[in-house]
Order: sequence, then C-alpha cells, then structure tokens
Amino acid sequence: MRSVTVLGATGSVGSSTLDLIARAPGSFEVLALTAHRDVGKLAAAARRLGARHAVVADEACLPALRDALSGTGITAAGGEAAVVEAASMGADWTMAAIVGCAGLPAVMAALTGGRAVALANKEALVSAGSLMTAAATRSGATLLPVDSEHNAIFQCLAGQSLDRVRRIVLTASGGPFRAMPRDAMASVTPAEAVKHPNWSMGAKISVDSATMMNKGLELIEAFHLFPVGAERLEVIVHPQSVVHSMVEYVDGSTLAQMGPPDMRVPIAHALAWPDRMTGPCPPLDLAAIGRLDFEAPDETRFPALRLARQALMAGGGTPAILNAANEVAVAAFLAGSIGFLDIAAIVDDTLQSYDPPAPQTLDEVFAIDREARVVADRLLEDVRH
Amino acid sequence: MRSVTVLGATGSVGSSTLDLIARAPGSFEVLALTAHRDVGKLAAAARRLGARHAVVADEACLPALRDALSGTGITAAGGEAAVVEAASMGADWTMAAIVGCAGLPAVMAALTGGRAVALANKEALVSAGSLMTAAATRSGATLLPVDSEHNAIFQCLAGQSLDRVRRIVLTASGGPFRAMPRDAMASVTPAEAVKHPNWSMGAKISVDSATMMNKGLELIEAFHLFPVGAERLEVIVHPQSVVHSMVEYVDGSTLAQMGPPDMRVPIAHALAWPDRMTGPCPPLDLAAIGRLDFEAPDETRFPALRLARQALMAGGGTPAILNAANEVAVAAFLAGSIGFLDIAAIVDDTLQSYDPPAPQTLDEVFAIDREARVVADRLLEDVRH
Repeated sequence: MRSVTVLGATGSVGSSTLDLIARAPGSFEVLALTAHRDVGKLAAAARRLGARHAVVADEACLPALRDALSGTGITAAGGEAAVVEAASMGADWTMAAIVGCAGLPAVMAALTGGRAVALANKEALVSAGSLMTAAATRSGATLLPVDSEHNAIFQCLAGQSLDRVRRIVLTASGGPFRAMPRDAMASVTPAEAVKHPNWSMGAKISVDSATMMNKGLELIEAFHLFPVGAERLEVIVHPQSVVHSMVEYVDGSTLAQMGPPDMRVPIAHALAWPDRMTGPCPPLDLAAIGRLDFEAPDETRFPALRLARQALMAGGGTPAILNAANEVAVAAFLAGSIGFLDIAAIVDDTLQSYDPPAPQTLDEVFAIDREARVVADRLLEDVRH
Repeated sequence: MRSVTVLGATGSVGSSTLDLIARAPGSFEVLALTAHRDVGKLAAAARRLGARHAVVADEACLPALRDALSGTGITAAGGEAAVVEAASMGADWTMAAIVGCAGLPAVMAALTGGRAVALANKEALVSAGSLMTAAATRSGATLLPVDSEHNAIFQCLAGQSLDRVRRIVLTASGGPFRAMPRDAMASVTPAEAVKHPNWSMGAKISVDSATMMNKGLELIEAFHLFPVGAERLEVIVHPQSVVHSMVEYVDGSTLAQMGPPDMRVPIAHALAWPDRMTGPCPPLDLAAIGRLDFEAPDETRFPALRLARQALMAGGGTPAILNAANEVAVAAFLAGSIGFLDIAAIVDDTLQSYDPPAPQTLDEVFAIDREARVVADRLLEDVRH
C-alpha cells in the first residue's frame, strides 16, 4: 500500500487522479486531499476513498467541510497553511495539482519531504524552477512530470543517462491557427482561439496553445526537469498530438511516447511509477488515425516561442515575468480588450521593462510575479488607447 | 574494455559492427572474428582491429588466411568446428551475424557461454527459437536483438515488466507492392520485387519484404524474444519505415523507437547496451520527412503474414518448415521459374504436406529444414508443369 496525497483534488487533474486511485483498490491509502473551496466535491471524494485528512484552502469554507465530514473520522482543516501542512505529512506519493502560483508553497513542502511528487503545476518549474529542483536534489525527492509532453520525455528517458541524449523534442499541436497567415491572426476572436483541435482544456491554456506560449512554457519546464542544456531542447509541430514528445540519443535512436489525448494516461504513469497500472483508455489505433504530420515551428508567426526561449536563456526571474505577463495579456484578450497579436507584444514589452535579480526564495518569486503583473497592466493601458 | 567476438564479420552487419568498434577506440578488445571464405576482408579486419583470433569457416581457405596473418601474432583456424570454438571463447559480447541455418551451432555456443549475444541471424529464432531461448535461460545469457524491429521493441521495453505490456506492434513497410491489387501481383518480375522502398538489402530479403513473409518471420522471432503471447503481437503497415516498432502498455502509453534506415543504429544500441555510444547517423529530421502513414495489413493480398501466424501458433517444427519452404520458393521466383503469388502457395502447400515432431536438438532442426526443402522442391515441380 502506497500512501498518497492529492493537492488540488477537485480540479481536472486531481479528479482524474482520484478516478485512477479508485480503480486500483488495495493499492493506495489516501492520506490527504485538498481543494480550493469546492467543499461538496472534496468531502465526497474523501468519503469515497477513505481519506484520513481533508483541507480546504479557503478558510471560510472550513465549517462547511467539518459538517460534510462529521461522523466519518476524517479530520478537516482550512487555510493556506493547512494545505502546506497536508503536503508535509509524508505521503509516499503526492499529486501537486493546485493551479497557479498559489500552489508553490505546497509543492515546495512536498518536495522537501523527499518522496515522489507528481507535478501538474506549471508555475513551480516556469517561475521557480531552480528553487524547486534544488529542493528536490537536497531531499532526494523524485519529480514525476504529469504534463503529457514531459511525462512522455520522462518515459523515453527510462534508465538512460542524460549524457547520452542528443536532443529532446517537444511536440506541439500548433493550435487552431497553425496554418493561418500572421495578418489574419490580428483579428481572431477569443471564441476562435479557445477551440483547441485535440485536447479539451480551459480557456487560458487553450489561448496559450493558440499563441504557442504553452509550448514555450513547456520548454522552460523541460529545461529544469531534464538538464541536458537549452541547446538540446527543440519543438516540432505535430497537429495530431499523438506523439507527445521524443528523445533522440547519441546513437541515432529516437524514442517517442504516443497515446490518446487523455490526461489519465500520463497520470496513471506517474501514479504507478516505476511500475505500470491498468488504465481506462482504449488502445491506440494508428491505422484508424492514418497519418501523423510533422513540421518545423514558425517563430515569426508564433513569437511566443522565441520569447520563451529568450526568457529561458536569461534565467533568474525572467521566466516568472514571462508567465505573469502572459497571464495578464491572455486575460485581457479573453475579455476582448486587446487583439490576439497583442498578447506576445505585451509579454515582450514586459520582459524588456522589468529586470529583477534572480529570486532566492518563493516570496521573491511572488514579488516578481506581482510586479510583472503591474508592469503588464500598465502596458495594456497603452494598447487599449 | 569489453571483449567482443564477431561471427560473420565480413557480411553487411558484421562490417557495420566492426566500423562501430573502430569508432570507439579503447572501449572494445576484439577476441575473435569469423567469416565464411572472404579471407582478404577477414584478415584486413583482424589486423586493423588487433583481433586475437581469426577463423574461416571454409577450411580450404585456411592456408590463405594463415598467409595473410603471418607475422601478426593473430592466430588462425578453419572449419565449422573452429567457428563454434571461436563462439565459445567467452567474449563479453558476441555479434551472431552468420546468415542461415549454418549459423545456428555458433549462436548456440555463444548463448551457452552466458554472456551478451547480439543476434542478427533470423533462423536462430524462427527455426530453433525454443532451443535458443531455453539455452539463454539456462546460462543467463542476454539476447540483444539487432533486427531493427526487434531492437526497437527491446528499447521500448527497457526496464519494464512484460506483464505490463498490452500489445507489441511490429511495423512493416508493406514493400514495393503495398498498394497493388492481388491480380496485378501475379505478373510482377523479380527486378520489381527486389526494389525495396526504404532499405538497401539483399535479393532474398527484399522478396520477403515484397511478400511480407519477412514480417511474418519477424512475428515468430518476436514471439520468442518477448514472451507476451502470440495474441499480443500485431503488425501495422508504415510505408516510411521511420517508426521501427512499438510497445503499448496497459496504462495506455505507447513507446515507439524511430530512426533512419541504417543498421548501424540498432547495432550501436546492441554494442553499447546497457549504455549508449555515439553513432555516425545524422539526426532524424521529422519535419523534412513530413508525414508518417499507418494502415492495417491486408492478409488477403499478403497471405504470407497469415501463414507465418499459423506456423507460430502450430509451433514445434512448423516455423522451420515455413522458413525452409520460403527460401526454396523465393529462389525459384528469383530464378524466374515460378510467379510471385506462387511463393506463398508453395509455402502453404509445404506446411500442409509435412508435419514432423517438435525438434529437441539443432540436428533435428537441420533434418526438418532439409526435409522441408525436399518437399518444397517437389511441389515446385508441379507449379512449373
């Protein structure tokens, strides 16, 4: 029996994780589940899986959680500090699926515990990558990537030394505007931008896929997860999203991981690692899919990729600025106040307007994140007028 | 320093192996090299690589070999027994690249030594698979497949239990007649049949690719190398031959190995295993390749696939009969005495005409091989008249 904790248990990744845990009775013991404020879903999951502890981050919801768990023996707690405490309870395996910078202290706490941490939070590596990997190295924790691309790379690297890697190639769907001329992109609407061809995702990440900023952020994550050097990290456009990423070795072999566009595949891999568990996804029918296409990415039409690579090379606080400015710009685009091409322009301008020293603590990361948002907001005003 | 022996050092796979050994000075010590009768090439290789021992299988060539090596300190020997003796000298790693049933005693000797044996000889697993894998199990030898498909599968299985495999999928180019209606196949010429779309190979194996018997034989090899059960082995047609084969796991992940159509990629993998060595092949440029196609194989147009699966299920001596009858039929096709569609028909008829008990020794395998050739020859006479 492996003890598991799921941070962010009521979101999409958290729910899929609980679904897989429920499919393997007798394999896992649920130590703690946390949620932002969806008390109903959290309490139901804690009861169903026999969790020992449930935490709601929004302390105002604690009385409701206590009510929902009364008589079950499941202990309840509330507040951000209680979430971090839950992450520190020493589970053999922790799913870190809290969205955004809010999740960083809990990720850090789980990594400090020195066990296996499945990472679904993007900001942990984009904005605080050096701090997180340093914590994992200190404690001996294993970072298990859950993002389909990084999970693919992790699988393709199994048992091999990074010294033997010639290239790591992340695949990108290219998004809904893959073949659109840059001029036409100027007038696309939020509704057009959120129509992702392969994955069903939230609005923000769908826009990131349309700008290809998503792939840029993943390049930064890959840089921290797989330290082969930025020059060995590449992106290739693959519209069908069947190949999730690849590793080419010095001997000329390329290993690729493929699968359906279902997050339960990488989550199941991380959950059972280093073993594998039976998952609910149907076999991959390549004959029915018929063809897989590949093309080089176009950084002229998709400048976000270039910006992300620049931020990666600059290091320090720059990736955190990239991420924060992008969030501000995407929100403005979704609100209809700026155009699609303005997103990358705002990010570019923010990167050039703000150059803090490298953060040494999570608090410094948060300060950079806040300041970058202020700068990006100010730049937005100029675009609006 | 790893000691290596190359059986069949002057053929295509043997030469590529020596090329890779020469590229890694200080990594390998060459114990023995053997050849059929190409004394000039054998002696030159033995001198270049500082081999300790050289063997020519055709004893009549021994005096010439002695002459060519005089003054070098490299010992020389001749005859089939001397080849087997060379295979028994206890090299850490042996490349078994002797073509045909003639290579079986040397493969067996190398496996009995209990070290790593890189296997490029098809007959060892097709005709004598149970005997070979039993010998490897007894001695603890590791079988390293060199065939691009099986090497790909071996790589995709790295560190994973066969219990966790849902399917192993061998890719097939489909050969030059992939899209040809069966009627038109009746009149194809040997020259048309040997034009393989992707690999540069000998005439016999090119015809096997055109009939897809090659893939059938590989199914049988895979059955012995990766004991997941025949029902978990599948074939998919992939005309570009970039994906060399795939393994799908129970969690929904599929791992695939890709590479250029260059045998030095799988040979380098086997030579350096479990590490990897730098190889001479350029990076895989998927953007330049552009697309990868996949389709289900058509066992009506390519009955050899069905025959091979039948032979696999029948087991015992049946795969040896399949292989021998196919060799006879392909030779007759290349000589212009039968049509392309007669190849599978002759194999089918031979399988139905001869049903020996399961071979318990290599001598029994040879007897089955000889008898199957007699039966196939007799059936050929009927086709010719």
